[in-house]
Amino acid sequence: MVHDPLSQIFGALADPTRRAILARLTAGEASVSDLAKPFLGEMSLPAVTKHLKVLEKAGLISKGRDAQWRPCRINGEPFKDVVGWLEQYRTFWEESFDRLEEYLKTVTKPKGKGKRHGRKKQPE
Amino acid sequence: MVHDPLSQIFGALADPTRRAILARLTAGEASVSDLAKPFLGEMSLPAVTKHLKVLEKAGLISKGRDAQWRPCRINGEPFKDVVGWLEQYRTFWEESFDRLEEYLKTVTKPKGKGKRHGRKKQPE
Repeated sequence: MVHDPLSQIFGALADPTRRAILARLTAGEASVSDLAKPFLGEMSLPAVTKHLKVLEKAGLISKGRDAQWRPCRINGEPFKDVVGWLEQYRTFWEESFDRLEEYLKTVTKPKGKGKRHGRKKQPE
Repeated sequence: MVHDPLSQIFGALADPTRRAILARLTAGEASVSDLAKPFLGEMSLPAVTKHLKVLEKAGLISKGRDAQWRPCRINGEPFKDVVGWLEQYRTFWEESFDRLEEYLKTVTKPKGKGKRHGRKKQPE
């Protein structure tokens, strides 16, 4: 099955292991074995390698050219594509952030008042 | 298989038909039959309904409560989750936007100079 680039990117992101690998790579380049380490209790090395291949095919990561040490790194390009795609939904997610802000106003401590432990606003 | 919310959202977005349905809904609420219309040449109504269910399960759309006409609409919440998740990769996609900008500078016509057809910057 041939996937369009965006479907491939979203498909690659639709897995918690792959997202954890990406999160690890925000700290810098890493070898396959380093990336695999945290997962080896729950899955095999070939399973991790397969996840890396999905990320690589989607363009989210790439491997260095050094024959000795081919570290994985994040590619910004597909993230940029997702950000660009999300732009058309801005009004929807901004509305959602506004509602969050409104909610947070009701649960956070008003300035100059005493400490408040509950989540609900108390009557003054 | 139980999916975490982000995996469910990304999984739902990993399909061009589902993204086309969402794009249609940016123009406003629509009934299932209206949403299905553009796809009925290439797929059945149950196939479209299945796509809508995937979007609904991921929280990306919801249906109105009116028993007579239950229009679909976009929910901003999951988009907000994606935007929040993307934030940790900002340095990567901003770098990518910077490179695009640099590239565009080399292919667009400099102000006050003659028309330029080539992609490469000519020596002055």
